[in-house]
Amino acid sequence: MLEMNLYLDPADSRALYQQLYENLARQIKTGQLRAGEKLPGKRSLSAQLAVAVNTVDTAYQMLVAEGYLESRPKSGFYVLEYTDMLPRREVPVLRTPMPEPALPAVRFDLSTGAVDTALFPFRTWGRIQKELLYARPELLGHGHRQGDPELREELAVYLRSYRGVMCSPEQIVVGAGVEYLLGLVAQLLREEGGTAAIENPGYDRSRTILENNGVPCRCVDIDGSGLPVPGLEESGATICYVTPSHHFPTAVTMPAGRRAQLLRWAAGAPGRYILEDDYDAEFRFDMRPIPSLQGMAGPDGPVVYLCTFSKSLAPSIRIACMVLPPELLARYRSAFGSYANTVSRFEQQTLCRFLKEGYFTRHLARMRSAYKSRMESLAGALENRFPSVGLAGRHTGLHLLLTLPDGPGEDAMEQSALAAGIGLRGLSRYYMERRELCRENTVVLGYASLRDEEIGSLAAALGEAWKD
Amino acid sequence: MLEMNLYLDPADSRALYQQLYENLARQIKTGQLRAGEKLPGKRSLSAQLAVAVNTVDTAYQMLVAEGYLESRPKSGFYVLEYTDMLPRREVPVLRTPMPEPALPAVRFDLSTGAVDTALFPFRTWGRIQKELLYARPELLGHGHRQGDPELREELAVYLRSYRGVMCSPEQIVVGAGVEYLLGLVAQLLREEGGTAAIENPGYDRSRTILENNGVPCRCVDIDGSGLPVPGLEESGATICYVTPSHHFPTAVTMPAGRRAQLLRWAAGAPGRYILEDDYDAEFRFDMRPIPSLQGMAGPDGPVVYLCTFSKSLAPSIRIACMVLPPELLARYRSAFGSYANTVSRFEQQTLCRFLKEGYFTRHLARMRSAYKSRMESLAGALENRFPSVGLAGRHTGLHLLLTLPDGPGEDAMEQSALAAGIGLRGLSRYYMERRELCRENTVVLGYASLRDEEIGSLAAALGEAWKD
Repeated sequence: MLEMNLYLDPADSRALYQQLYENLARQIKTGQLRAGEKLPGKRSLSAQLAVAVNTVDTAYQMLVAEGYLESRPKSGFYVLEYTDMLPRREVPVLRTPMPEPALPAVRFDLSTGAVDTALFPFRTWGRIQKELLYARPELLGHGHRQGDPELREELAVYLRSYRGVMCSPEQIVVGAGVEYLLGLVAQLLREEGGTAAIENPGYDRSRTILENNGVPCRCVDIDGSGLPVPGLEESGATICYVTPSHHFPTAVTMPAGRRAQLLRWAAGAPGRYILEDDYDAEFRFDMRPIPSLQGMAGPDGPVVYLCTFSKSLAPSIRIACMVLPPELLARYRSAFGSYANTVSRFEQQTLCRFLKEGYFTRHLARMRSAYKSRMESLAGALENRFPSVGLAGRHTGLHLLLTLPDGPGEDAMEQSALAAGIGLRGLSRYYMERRELCRENTVVLGYASLRDEEIGSLAAALGEAWKD
Repeated sequence: MLEMNLYLDPADSRALYQQLYENLARQIKTGQLRAGEKLPGKRSLSAQLAVAVNTVDTAYQMLVAEGYLESRPKSGFYVLEYTDMLPRREVPVLRTPMPEPALPAVRFDLSTGAVDTALFPFRTWGRIQKELLYARPELLGHGHRQGDPELREELAVYLRSYRGVMCSPEQIVVGAGVEYLLGLVAQLLREEGGTAAIENPGYDRSRTILENNGVPCRCVDIDGSGLPVPGLEESGATICYVTPSHHFPTAVTMPAGRRAQLLRWAAGAPGRYILEDDYDAEFRFDMRPIPSLQGMAGPDGPVVYLCTFSKSLAPSIRIACMVLPPELLARYRSAFGSYANTVSRFEQQTLCRFLKEGYFTRHLARMRSAYKSRMESLAGALENRFPSVGLAGRHTGLHLLLTLPDGPGEDAMEQSALAAGIGLRGLSRYYMERRELCRENTVVLGYASLRDEEIGSLAAALGEAWKD
C-alpha cells in the first residue's frame, strides 16, 4: 500500500474533499503517483486523515469520473496512465483582463443610434409580457426556426399596409437584429462569389457584416437621388445594398424612376439581388412613408427586404425581420433550416399581440408626432441661432444634417461641440472612400433622445461652441 | 392642360387619395402621362373629381416624394422622366407561399432538445422582469456589445465556481444562442484557412455552422474516452470542436489524461484552438460536474469555452455565452466590435439578478434532483420491461442510450416506436460518416420533457412496440 503524502487544512476555504481531490490529481499529473499504483482504501485513508469516509469517497469518485483513477470491483482504486504532461503554451503577452473601451460622457448625445426611451409603451408591453409568461408556458419550448408563425402573420400584414411590402408570412425570417439577418443573407449569396455595391457615404457596419461573411464590397458614390445605376454597373457588383426610403446618413429618398432603374439592373442578369435596408422609414413626417422597393418588385422579385424594430420599439429589444424572395428562401431553408431562432419567444409573442391589438400603430403615431415636434423645435432653434444654417433631412428619420456655410470646418465643429459636452459626428465620417466629395462644414444631428426642454440650451451651447 | 382620365370609387376600400395616387403613378409608369407634361391644378382637379382639395394635394405630394412628379414653385406639378419600364423577371417557378415542414405529432417526445417547462421559475423570473422594466428604463438603450458588464461579472463567478472556467468578465461574450456565437468564432478562425475536427458521432448542427461560416470540417471517430488525439493529428485540423464533459450523444466523459493530450495537441503549433461545447454539463447526477477543459488550460490557454442556458432555463430564452482567450478576444473586438449584442437587455439583466441573488443555483439543484429521479424511474421501468437492456448515460445530461441486444435493428425500433406515438432517434443518425461503426439496436432517449406519471405507460408502449 502506498504511503500518502497528504495534509488537509480545515481552515482552508476549500472543502476537505476538494483539497484531497486536488492534491491527488496534482500527484498524478506530476508523476508522484504512477500508473498502476493502488491507493489506500477509503476507510483506511479517512482514518489516517481524520476525515469522514464520505470525504474520501467523494474525492475518489471525482478522480474516477475525470479519468485519473480506475475503480476495480472488489479490489480498490488504481492510478491510470497520465502520459502527457501539459506544456506551457507560448502566447503573445496580452493584458488579461483587457480593458474595455470607454465612451466619453456627454451632456447631449446627438448620435444617430439613440431613441427616446420615455416614449416606450411600458405599461402595455409589461402587461402583455406578464400575461404571456403565465398563460402560455409552452412558449418556453423551441419555436419555429424562422420565427413564431403568429408573429410572421402580423408582420406580413403590417409590412403590407405600412411599407407596401408584398410577401407571405412564409417568406419572413425573424432574427435578433438586422446585423444578424444580413450576415445570414451574405452567407447565402457568398457561394456565388459575387461582390456587393454599397452606398458611399453609408452605413459602415453593413459593409463590415457583408465582408465578415465573405462578401467583398465596392463603394459607389451616391448622387442627389441615391445610388446611381451607372456607378453600380461599373462596380461589377452582383449584390446592391441600399437604403432607398431614407438614405443613411444624407436622408435622400430615392425617386421612383431611380427605383425602377435599380430593379431593371437586378433583372438584367441571374443571381443579382438588391438588399433593401428600410431602417427607419416608419418615421416619415410629411406624409405616409414611401412604399418599399420590395413592393415594386413583388413577392418573387429580386429584393431582400430588411427592417428592424430597434427604433420603433427600443434598441435593446432585439427584433428584426427580413423578407426573402422564393429562391433565396429555399436556399435559406437548406443552409440554415437547423438553426434555432435567435429571438426569445416571449418577446416575439409580445410584439405579435402588440401588432395584432393595434397598439403598435398607435405607438408609432405617438412617436411620429413627438419626434416631428422635436425636430421642428430643434430646426427653429438652430435657424434662430445660425441665420445662414442649412438643414436637411426634415422629412424622414431621426436626424438632421446641419451645414454652416462659413463654418470653421467639420473637425473643428466636432471638437468644439465635444468640448461643450455635445456628442455629434461630421458627415465625412460616413464616407468610406473619397471623403473629398463630402459637403463641407456639415454635421449629423440625431435628435431622438433629446428632451424637448433641452433644445434651447443645446442651441445656445452650439452657438457658443461655433461662434467665430 | 392635360385631360385627366380618372375615376375614383367611394365604395373602394382604399382611401380616395390612395386611389388617385395609384392611378396617376400607373399612368406615369405606362407612359400615358409623359415627362414634362403639366398636371391640372389641385383646385381644378378636386372640382373635376368632386373630392376635397386636400385629397388631391396628398396624392400629389406622395408622387413628388417618390419622384414621379416635380413641383415647380409658382407654376405647378410636372411629370418627371420615368425612363425604365420595369421588365418581368424570369424566376424559377416556386410556390409562394412555400409550405413549412410539419413535424409528426407524437404522444411521447423523446428528442434530445426538449426540457421540462414545468420546472421553469415563472414566479421569480416574472417578478424580476417586471421590476426591471419599470425600475430601469435605461435598459431600453444600447448596451455593451459583448453583453451587459454586470451580467458578465456574474457569469464569470458562476462559470468559475460551477464549471471551473478561469476567465475575467472581459473575456466573456453573451449572444443569442451557441449557434450564433460558434458562427462568430468560425469567422474569426476562417481567415487562417484551417479545418476543424469534429466528433463522429456528434452534433451535426455544429458542423453545419462551422461550414456555413467557411470552416471545412473533418469527422474523427471517437473511442471510449471521446475524441482520440492520433485521429485528430491525422485529420490535419487546426481547430478541434469537442464536448468533453458529456459527449453528444454517447454521454462519454473525457478522462483527464485525454484532456491533457488534447491541450498538448493545441499547444503543439501556433493557431490551434479547441472549441469546448459544454452544452449540458450542469446536469451531472452522481457528483459535482467535471471542471471544464478551459479551466485546465487557464485564461490564456487555447480554448474557446461555449455554454448555453437553453437547457438550464428554457430553449426559447436565447442566452448563451462564450469565453475567448486573449488573442481571439483582440481579434473579436477588431472584427465584430461594431456589432450590437443580440440578447435583449431585459433578459440579460433578469438572468444577472437571477444569478446574483442565488436563484439560479437553487433552480439548478431543483432541476437536477427532478431530472435524476425521472432518469432513475425511467431506467427502472425499462430494465423491468426489457431484462436484457443496456442503458448508458446515467451520470450526466438529459438522455439515455438504450441498447436492446437482440433487438430488431435500429430502423425497426425507430419505426415501431413512431407507430406507437413515441418520437425517438436511432444512434446511427448522429454518425456523420461511417455509420457501420455504430453500436447496433441502440436508440437515444431524451427524457427531460416526460412527465413522471407517464413513465409507466411509455415503458409499456415501448414493450408493446418492440416485442418480437
